[in-house]
Amino acid sequence: MENNIDFISKTLTFWDNLSKKEQDLILNNIHYSNYKKGDNVHSGENDCVGVLLIKSGELRTYILSEDGREITLYRLNEGDVCILSASCILENITFDVHIDAELDSEILLINSSIFKQVSSKNIYAENFSYRLTIDRFSDVMWAMEQILFMSFDKRLAIFLIDELSRNHSNSIALTHEQIAKYVGSAREVVSRMLKYFQTEGLVKLSRGVVEIIDKKGLMKLI
Amino acid sequence: MENNIDFISKTLTFWDNLSKKEQDLILNNIHYSNYKKGDNVHSGENDCVGVLLIKSGELRTYILSEDGREITLYRLNEGDVCILSASCILENITFDVHIDAELDSEILLINSSIFKQVSSKNIYAENFSYRLTIDRFSDVMWAMEQILFMSFDKRLAIFLIDELSRNHSNSIALTHEQIAKYVGSAREVVSRMLKYFQTEGLVKLSRGVVEIIDKKGLMKLI
Repeated sequence: MENNIDFISKTLTFWDNLSKKEQDLILNNIHYSNYKKGDNVHSGENDCVGVLLIKSGELRTYILSEDGREITLYRLNEGDVCILSASCILENITFDVHIDAELDSEILLINSSIFKQVSSKNIYAENFSYRLTIDRFSDVMWAMEQILFMSFDKRLAIFLIDELSRNHSNSIALTHEQIAKYVGSAREVVSRMLKYFQTEGLVKLSRGVVEIIDKKGLMKLI
Repeated sequence: MENNIDFISKTLTFWDNLSKKEQDLILNNIHYSNYKKGDNVHSGENDCVGVLLIKSGELRTYILSEDGREITLYRLNEGDVCILSASCILENITFDVHIDAELDSEILLINSSIFKQVSSKNIYAENFSYRLTIDRFSDVMWAMEQILFMSFDKRLAIFLIDELSRNHSNSIALTHEQIAKYVGSAREVVSRMLKYFQTEGLVKLSRGVVEIIDKKGLMKLI
């Protein structure tokens, strides 16, 4: 744990406003977790796993419809703190999200009840959790505007180019179903647009793989 | 102003945590405004009108696409406080909204810079603005789930029934274009669904008016 204290005190920006006792309470109740790519970290209303400090990796937060459609809200990376996984401690959060590990991830987890114990007595900790939540509000508004307002060819082109730079490769190993989940659309809509992209010479499709042929052409769509 | 003090101190729940000087600063800088139905109250990024205490009426908050499409996020009524009209004082709000008066509205307005002056020194006022913002985050998530996940017949039926109970009438005097703006869809989609509702005997359409014929039938769709 010693080598984590630096990371914790830097990540929890209210650290210096905690008493020694409050710091110890957190340090004695912080747990190291390892998630494999694809693992579910937090699942809707019956879950309140705690405040997550991301040491490495990536977490994806999304909402899920009754019929299984996913809409990605935002992604968190190294050094970010995930607060909606402890939404039960924020009484005015009335919605539920799901969180998956998108990459193998190392997480330091502060149990929800411990965080609540600290933030209910220390207004700086409370303020930290509010400000973090409002950051995520801004992320969600961004996602919502992308999904609702942007024409679909543009959205799909942005997604493909983002994936390219994340993977450092010309191929994207995702099914149309998976791409649809990421961009918040239906599989049929994605397939149709990808086929259109193929006829335009922008991509080449094969089973489970989208190969980018003309990155410049895709970027012109954006 | 005297008869407003009760309303202000009840509505701003941090009132008792303010010093007499802070209370006076707010009272000396609160302004009464009257908005007519349809008036724009706040418009995107170049605007930061202030914190609005709604004495009567209704404000509607929405986002606007480049091509003029509106998506309604939430509505605020008597006793509510509107904070996103002062989003410039919340540094982690990176998005812009528009706010219109939906009914004739009486508003008490606290100038953004005065509210910032108080909340930057009084952590209770700061916390109040954060909690209020997070309430709106929950509203937005609700709207987003409605828009993205709900089938359109259901959404339109809910909208029509809500309008009925707001108007205490069997007729809704809105064009298809206006309805489309309220439910976050395109005019063509609304017109198509309304025509379908008409063939099902649920509504009767005439220029600028939707008359509800079979409310029970509409409610069955929900």
